Amino acid sequence: MDFTFLGTGAGMPAKERNVSSLAVSFPEYNGELWLFDCGEGTQRQILYTSVRLPKLSVVFITHLHGDHIYGLPGVLGSRSFQGADQELCLVGPVGLKQFVETTLNVSKTHLHYPVKIIEIEKPGIIYENSHFKVEARELDHGIQCFGYRLIEKNQPGELLIDKIRALGIPEGPIYQQFKEATEVKLPDGRILPTAPFLGPEKKGRHIAVIGDTRPCASVRTLAQDADLMIHEATFSHDESRHAHDYHHSTSVQAAQQALEANVSALILTHLSSRYQKAGQKALLDEARAVFRPTLLASDLWHYSLKRQSR
Amino acid sequence: MDFTFLGTGAGMPAKERNVSSLAVSFPEYNGELWLFDCGEGTQRQILYTSVRLPKLSVVFITHLHGDHIYGLPGVLGSRSFQGADQELCLVGPVGLKQFVETTLNVSKTHLHYPVKIIEIEKPGIIYENSHFKVEARELDHGIQCFGYRLIEKNQPGELLIDKIRALGIPEGPIYQQFKEATEVKLPDGRILPTAPFLGPEKKGRHIAVIGDTRPCASVRTLAQDADLMIHEATFSHDESRHAHDYHHSTSVQAAQQALEANVSALILTHLSSRYQKAGQKALLDEARAVFRPTLLASDLWHYSLKRQSR
Repeated sequence: MDFTFLGTGAGMPAKERNVSSLAVSFPEYNGELWLFDCGEGTQRQILYTSVRLPKLSVVFITHLHGDHIYGLPGVLGSRSFQGADQELCLVGPVGLKQFVETTLNVSKTHLHYPVKIIEIEKPGIIYENSHFKVEARELDHGIQCFGYRLIEKNQPGELLIDKIRALGIPEGPIYQQFKEATEVKLPDGRILPTAPFLGPEKKGRHIAVIGDTRPCASVRTLAQDADLMIHEATFSHDESRHAHDYHHSTSVQAAQQALEANVSALILTHLSSRYQKAGQKALLDEARAVFRPTLLASDLWHYSLKRQSR
Repeated sequence: MDFTFLGTGAGMPAKERNVSSLAVSFPEYNGELWLFDCGEGTQRQILYTSVRLPKLSVVFITHLHGDHIYGLPGVLGSRSFQGADQELCLVGPVGLKQFVETTLNVSKTHLHYPVKIIEIEKPGIIYENSHFKVEARELDHGIQCFGYRLIEKNQPGELLIDKIRALGIPEGPIYQQFKEATEVKLPDGRILPTAPFLGPEKKGRHIAVIGDTRPCASVRTLAQDADLMIHEATFSHDESRHAHDYHHSTSVQAAQQALEANVSALILTHLSSRYQKAGQKALLDEARAVFRPTLLASDLWHYSLKRQSR
């Protein structure tokens, strides 16, 4: 599971950081690709990465501020131009449908694939595929804004081959049935439950992707015991008042949430362009003083989260 | 009058060329700034130039394809964030108003300046200020698309100071009246027509900015005897069929139009990303074989057009 940070700045693009977008790709699941937010210029940022738009299957939008959505029409058009014909699913707050339909209609953009738009009506599991469920909860950002928890489904444990061999069954397709079914019928007619022939279930990974927000209970709920939380850090600690007034978080607040939610790792993103090199280091140091396993994202930075990380 | 090419590619952004936008600034008129088209990422391109959004007074849109307008909402928001409070005028095809209003409303972008939207109902002079008139004509691009002719107003000739002195009038504010009025009343009561005391009128500059199009009569009308024509050149000569099918021009066609319209100079822009270094040179060479004073724009390239260039 790979995270490519396409834009890690806040509000307006800067030379160093473009506006928000995060690509999450799944080499372990056929290279499928998701985007979280799609600020202006996202499709151009993608040119500098290994991300390929035709692989894109879902775009999750946290909220409808311009720096999180103005790149979406361009991504939709270019994905079509690049030959994609598989359905694309868009998930986000009410208003997303009007934005997408108007921008495509006015510009006479005809997509060569179907688009399914899910406007989130109430929090909960808002998306599911064979490998993941995604839960959404409302944050505290003035405008309606969602945080997402990616819940990888648990996988059956390793096949205990020696135990099956001990039954005198020769290796063959029947071994696979031990992994896929709850019971197996042997050639001699016996019916066996499969559970005793499997190791412990592999726990799926859980990742919280938090949109713009003040600290709030939803963040902690979404992030509880997660393997990774990706959280905004628009301001430094001495700008806490400013952060509050603009419905944002400081890096210290993000770290406090990570600590309380008992996550394994925290990645900070969405930095105000007022912070240059030294400012960014200070912002990270402040957070690490609260929660040690904190990293600071930069544009085009790539982070891999292996299976069974904890 | 300075031209800064912010995006010179066609259709989709590429590493080398972003999608369409051209900044025209007027150091001779208080640094006022116009944009022609505003593709996605325009506001980020601007960061690498001396262009300043608060100076922006008019955006002319040639047509509503995404690669010409998807950067507009971001430019509007950032101009406001940067403190501009002067009215901004947007000129373009019908549909522009819906695009701007929907994108700003959905994203809850509140501008701190008034926006005036002029949707072009019929060709002709569609904009005028103290120094310029702008004429629009419909091109041939499948979708409604306009070309623009910027018509700088003629200015009074030089004051023939020696001739005024010969009347025995001492230098003073009255000299300025010779330039500004058609008649002047002298201290001794005489009334004189001013024309004989002025050199020949200075002819204003005329510039044709041509949107995406097949070759057509409107291009030649807009460009007739202009000091400069800026014209798309999406394809090379051997792709003429392709250019026709997609309602575009080749560089040779652009050059032919320049020749027929008797312009002083031609700048080619809006190149397909299929052309790399050698391809771009070929495209320019082909055009120059038809019309020698042809230049090829690149992203962030700056071109100055002095007064009285011809």
